[in-house]
Amino acid sequence: MKSPLLDKIAVPTLLLDADRCRANIQEMSDKAARSGTFFRPHFKTHQSLAIGQWFKEVGVTAITVSSLQMAEYFASEWDDVTVAFPVNILEIDRINSLAKKIKLNILVEHAESLSFLNEHLTASVGYFIKIDVGYGRTGLPPQAHQRMEELLTFASAGNLRFKGFLAHAGHTYSCRSEAAILAIHSQSCATMIVLKENYLSRFPELVISLGDTPSCSVAEDFAGIDEIRPGNFVFYDLTQARIGSNTTDQIAVAMACPVVARHPERNELVVYGGGVHLSKDRIDGEPEGTVFGRIVRSTEKGWGGLIEGMYLRSLSQEHGIVKGPSAEIEQYQIGDIVLVLSVHSCMAANAMKQYLTLEGQWIKRL
Amino acid sequence: MKSPLLDKIAVPTLLLDADRCRANIQEMSDKAARSGTFFRPHFKTHQSLAIGQWFKEVGVTAITVSSLQMAEYFASEWDDVTVAFPVNILEIDRINSLAKKIKLNILVEHAESLSFLNEHLTASVGYFIKIDVGYGRTGLPPQAHQRMEELLTFASAGNLRFKGFLAHAGHTYSCRSEAAILAIHSQSCATMIVLKENYLSRFPELVISLGDTPSCSVAEDFAGIDEIRPGNFVFYDLTQARIGSNTTDQIAVAMACPVVARHPERNELVVYGGGVHLSKDRIDGEPEGTVFGRIVRSTEKGWGGLIEGMYLRSLSQEHGIVKGPSAEIEQYQIGDIVLVLSVHSCMAANAMKQYLTLEGQWIKRL
Repeated sequence: MKSPLLDKIAVPTLLLDADRCRANIQEMSDKAARSGTFFRPHFKTHQSLAIGQWFKEVGVTAITVSSLQMAEYFASEWDDVTVAFPVNILEIDRINSLAKKIKLNILVEHAESLSFLNEHLTASVGYFIKIDVGYGRTGLPPQAHQRMEELLTFASAGNLRFKGFLAHAGHTYSCRSEAAILAIHSQSCATMIVLKENYLSRFPELVISLGDTPSCSVAEDFAGIDEIRPGNFVFYDLTQARIGSNTTDQIAVAMACPVVARHPERNELVVYGGGVHLSKDRIDGEPEGTVFGRIVRSTEKGWGGLIEGMYLRSLSQEHGIVKGPSAEIEQYQIGDIVLVLSVHSCMAANAMKQYLTLEGQWIKRL
Repeated sequence: MKSPLLDKIAVPTLLLDADRCRANIQEMSDKAARSGTFFRPHFKTHQSLAIGQWFKEVGVTAITVSSLQMAEYFASEWDDVTVAFPVNILEIDRINSLAKKIKLNILVEHAESLSFLNEHLTASVGYFIKIDVGYGRTGLPPQAHQRMEELLTFASAGNLRFKGFLAHAGHTYSCRSEAAILAIHSQSCATMIVLKENYLSRFPELVISLGDTPSCSVAEDFAGIDEIRPGNFVFYDLTQARIGSNTTDQIAVAMACPVVARHPERNELVVYGGGVHLSKDRIDGEPEGTVFGRIVRSTEKGWGGLIEGMYLRSLSQEHGIVKGPSAEIEQYQIGDIVLVLSVHSCMAANAMKQYLTLEGQWIKRL
């Protein structure tokens, strides 16, 4: 049984199951509402104005992106955007041009960046201080009070407005259980709530923003957190499934890859679909070793569950090598389509630049 | 000392040193001439008509690509193109439209693909039989005489024309010495020459085509090989340098990445430049562990040698984390540019879609 849509596919194509995607959006939106936190979803995964509309339908009014280029793209339909990436002062012209049009928030961790902005900004910009809650990528340690005070000297300087403290607990990506994610989440919340208690009297409008998809997917308790910024949940992927953020049934995108060679003698297929389509993101230490994607069963309307033991064992620039049980491999002929769940949907979506819905509609993105 | 070009860079930008690139082209072209083999360079690395002109200047008349889309792009200026990827029969319309315009060669390993093409081709297409010389990705084992005979029944059927045997010794990518590459190369040559001896009397125009960059960079002996198809050598990269194909001085592209955060307390910088720019390709087992790129010193005209011990330790979607000796890390300020040699130049170039030469000219690509 296969979808008639597959008959129209000739090259690697990223399929989007809009029902799953909308259900993921609804679920996260409901959780934010239940938790009393403001939902400012990260749009770096889908990067699509059309998919953005589905967020508007559940009441979303403000978004997060990870580059000024994305902010520019979304500025035509969104007037409240946080760029959750350490501010790149070299893009001051872009910042000024955006700040004239929309409510723009940026992320800072260095006084020299604020000092530069204070001199060069021509319109109002909100800034969040990035806090490192343990990931060790960017941000100030929560106990760096002196550096924080330096950053706060710009709290209402010129066109700058201090908005609050923002963290990304990216270390949840190394978790392999719900309990481990929740432990990190509790610690992140505790850290941020201490900051809130310390600074709320001076800055009564202070916003505490948290945002990794694993924590937001698994946790229910967001007490004291004003805003959440998950992004990947819109599609989810195998990485998130392994962490425990989602089931594979929630994954909303699959790469359709034509079979171009068959090697039943080694239980392998070669598909048109490589690193330029799926990215080279991988999961190490799976039962099969390193995995670059997993294969799902084609259904009349789209795709169903994982085919056990069938996966992408390697990727070249344009080739993918699918390995699987012989009974499964033998069912695929030259010109058939293999459906692949990606390891990292943000990167696969970025590589493909567009989506084909199961209803046969193309959805554009940045 | 830094190039004035860097003052114009605000976002991740792939710099191209045209002198190094042209020297790499000249060197490989000279080697092909010395060896008496036809030089059909693979254009999947640069994917640029403008860079293609530099190949024309050294006398190149025919090229290799890895997708029909690339063949279409180059067909405006190149009339002899081999698509070195197992033929994707779902793209029959593209094949027919290309075959009307140019001398098109494709790659096959299955009789069912040839049978389909025989029925549907509307213009002449040459086909190479793909031989697996030990890489284990695609192709027929050289001893698969019966399958070869099946493929040869189409040698002059309808619009099909048998051209010869083609191999890609991709297992050279796991080599770590010149001797290991040469051992694989000798074996590939021996395998292909036996095929040539067996079939030359039946097919006097038979072409034997070999083509990985490591073998073509290191070997001098191509006796009996009619054609070589290296590609990556146009830019080279850290992967090829580790294999032993090139010195780091020959690497012709470098990613310019703005510094957005400084963490001297852990000898790290955060740069704007992530997986969407460099790809997630990596080198494991380096002295420092896993490496996603290495940093070179900025010079007045471009870049010089590697800064010892300074490398990209991790990549997120937009962030790169640079680690290095404290004396080096401390020299970079917010807004400075870090120059990164990529692990895999084909993937980085594919992600960036354009190049900025050291003379300040933008070069477009597919």
